Amino acid sequence: MNFRKFLSALLVLILVSIPILSQQKKRADGKVTIISGGTVVTMDATHRVIENGAVAIKGDKVVAVGTKAEITKKYRGSRIIDATGKVVIPGLINTHTHVPMSLFRGISDDLDLNDWLTKYIFPAEAKNVDEAFVRAGTRLGLAEMIRGGTTTYCDMYYFEDAIADETKKAGMRGVLGETMIDFPVADNKTFDQAMTYGERFVRKWKNDPLIVPALAPHAPYTVSTEHLLAIKKLSDTLDAAIVIHVAETKKERDDILAQKGATPVNYLNRIGFLNDRVIAAHTVFVTNDEIDILKNKGVGAAHNPQSNMKLASGTAPVPMMLSKNLAVGLGTDGAASNNDVDMWEEMDTAAKLHKLISGDPKTLPAEQAFEMATIRGARALHIDKITGSIEVGKRADIAIVDLNSLHQTPSYNVYSSLVYSTKASDVRTVIINGQIVMLDRVLLTLNESAIKRDANAYRIKIINSLSR
Amino acid sequence: MNFRKFLSALLVLILVSIPILSQQKKRADGKVTIISGGTVVTMDATHRVIENGAVAIKGDKVVAVGTKAEITKKYRGSRIIDATGKVVIPGLINTHTHVPMSLFRGISDDLDLNDWLTKYIFPAEAKNVDEAFVRAGTRLGLAEMIRGGTTTYCDMYYFEDAIADETKKAGMRGVLGETMIDFPVADNKTFDQAMTYGERFVRKWKNDPLIVPALAPHAPYTVSTEHLLAIKKLSDTLDAAIVIHVAETKKERDDILAQKGATPVNYLNRIGFLNDRVIAAHTVFVTNDEIDILKNKGVGAAHNPQSNMKLASGTAPVPMMLSKNLAVGLGTDGAASNNDVDMWEEMDTAAKLHKLISGDPKTLPAEQAFEMATIRGARALHIDKITGSIEVGKRADIAIVDLNSLHQTPSYNVYSSLVYSTKASDVRTVIINGQIVMLDRVLLTLNESAIKRDANAYRIKIINSLSR
Repeated sequence: MNFRKFLSALLVLILVSIPILSQQKKRADGKVTIISGGTVVTMDATHRVIENGAVAIKGDKVVAVGTKAEITKKYRGSRIIDATGKVVIPGLINTHTHVPMSLFRGISDDLDLNDWLTKYIFPAEAKNVDEAFVRAGTRLGLAEMIRGGTTTYCDMYYFEDAIADETKKAGMRGVLGETMIDFPVADNKTFDQAMTYGERFVRKWKNDPLIVPALAPHAPYTVSTEHLLAIKKLSDTLDAAIVIHVAETKKERDDILAQKGATPVNYLNRIGFLNDRVIAAHTVFVTNDEIDILKNKGVGAAHNPQSNMKLASGTAPVPMMLSKNLAVGLGTDGAASNNDVDMWEEMDTAAKLHKLISGDPKTLPAEQAFEMATIRGARALHIDKITGSIEVGKRADIAIVDLNSLHQTPSYNVYSSLVYSTKASDVRTVIINGQIVMLDRVLLTLNESAIKRDANAYRIKIINSLSR
Repeated sequence: MNFRKFLSALLVLILVSIPILSQQKKRADGKVTIISGGTVVTMDATHRVIENGAVAIKGDKVVAVGTKAEITKKYRGSRIIDATGKVVIPGLINTHTHVPMSLFRGISDDLDLNDWLTKYIFPAEAKNVDEAFVRAGTRLGLAEMIRGGTTTYCDMYYFEDAIADETKKAGMRGVLGETMIDFPVADNKTFDQAMTYGERFVRKWKNDPLIVPALAPHAPYTVSTEHLLAIKKLSDTLDAAIVIHVAETKKERDDILAQKGATPVNYLNRIGFLNDRVIAAHTVFVTNDEIDILKNKGVGAAHNPQSNMKLASGTAPVPMMLSKNLAVGLGTDGAASNNDVDMWEEMDTAAKLHKLISGDPKTLPAEQAFEMATIRGARALHIDKITGSIEVGKRADIAIVDLNSLHQTPSYNVYSSLVYSTKASDVRTVIINGQIVMLDRVLLTLNESAIKRDANAYRIKIINSLSR
């Protein structure tokens, strides 16, 4: 073989090799799932929206985001999810709920807050809440949340260890707080018991890939200063998140002011309770100065517009919070005061409510409402490093949403369509931590008919318990 | 044959005849459709709710309402619709919309009202609205409304004759008003043309079983006193309904007060415009005395909570209207300012909004919100003699709604479930004027894919028209 022939052969070999090597390069990527086509709404720092986009997922993480052309050049994909004509969004983040209360959905509507709590919710809880109830209610709430594209939720209830167990089984991400309160409740009869439960709970789940365990003192008006400080100390020791209701009602604000000589936020700040592990739910009655305190201390806030409206609590000063760049997300609150765990309705309501209250239709535009339901919600829960946007290196928490239902047609702006037109029923497929938990509206980790059967059995039990 | 034998034979004959005759009695009822099983929420004068109920429909009318046992004893039914486990409700009544504007859904969100109108809506209308546009937009809005269980709507737009034609073809009931305004619009270039169109339109549709034709002066600030009086006179002559926007914004109230020396309602009353054929949309800025005027004159009102929030218009004093027993219904307004025509969201929002605004969670309970969306809405449109409730002799305008979706489970109170938990996607079957227009979520009178295709074609045309 002369040199020329050798060169030709070499050239042919190289030319033949390139696609094979490139193929092997692709194959070497292993089990990569590619969401291909559709509009990718990343909610990254620049709020990049990619038409005809794609997302590559390997294990629990996003490994590439780009155009379909870019991604399919780089990855073969052992599984392709076609999202053509759909929107690919970060999974929604429900920053405040009490998930087992789904079993009390609509049990006591249109009542005074006091009657609601003391005549219905507290007796219903006292007579019905045990670990089995909590598990059934959690599965019900989780199924509804997943069907609506929620991939992370923040909870506060009793038997939170059972809630964590059900949440993990369902493949859902949760920041889950065990309730601590100064009177006997379903799981813990004393504060000391609650502290013991809380510590064990946090240590057990501390390194779980899906569960962020938290301590959840109920509110400044139901937990003494001494106990709040004990919880704060335990949280410091364990590096644990804290979930707490703060300044939900005018009565709370006035009572704390009278008892402690300071409004709830000022009081919590004075006792050194606030830091960047705290998640404060509601924060309806807060001044501009108090928003500054929350911001400076790194506290996250959960705005629950529908619950605050239904219980006539008031309207949190969300536009001011946003102007100060506070980490404020959206939450549904428990289904007993909403009466669902539908984040699409919270977005729509938040965007409309703050226009009305401010008198300015430019307030809280759709994109900002969507941000509150995604990356800003993740910030509120202090987990924005791992979720809340579709970005390389973050966990794959993603929802694929129809954009061609009648009520979404036509679509001129993707954020407008998402916030003002899209319904929970438009969510097709949900991925959490890289795992597909709903595919084309079929739940893969939860048994919907069993959940309904259990919930209806509890319904009868609850009705009987209240009629006695 | 002796007498005893004769008697025995006679007895046997009688005994054998009874079921045969009774069967024939049943068969003689002809084509009766029976909705059988489920909870019938009648919204009759006593708000009767019938568990395991049934409704018999013959032709366009309800001929019997009762328990399943009662109805099936009396009627055989040539068609049985099984509603077991579902809720059977009067079809919802959308008291205010601009149905073709569905094609402008989300085209210009989060803007000042003035920018919204002058930079987007008016130019978009000027460049796109013709009869074909109106027909395509009407079909889109009708399909969305029917899928959500709406059986009657009140409209105000241009080319209303085409809207009436599409509405009748879809089998929908409509109170449809041809817009009259003091500047050239898509269909009529002068006020005289509009009057001619209006008269012809009303005479053409006057005795239609589905269409109630109306004259629709746009608003007190866009139609002169002289023209309002001319419309009033024509309405008297034709016995035609009048649809008009009244006191939607503070600016309108202030401008009319400055120009006419009276607020909109007082001004309209002073010129003798108000009577029991008038339907006033919005009525946000009205005093208690003005509510009394509306009530005394028999005017119907359309409350549009989501539109009023999104455009930051204000909140109509609905609890006061209800306490005075005003005929006030719920409306979606056009999809350009909402961004859907979903009455379930209006009910939910109305119930929550007025709790917030009044500071009282007992305000506007679920049952009252549902009443506003049904029989009180029919009163607002002055057609409560024929629709708005499920009662013998009324037209059969009925929706059959699931009650066992996850987000409705469990259900403790049917009104709570309907108002706070039910979504448009839970509506299964819709009957209007005795005709099934949606069966188990399949539209029978409208072609959904053609509607979407047409809407998306208009979307491109509209975008191009605005970029020029």
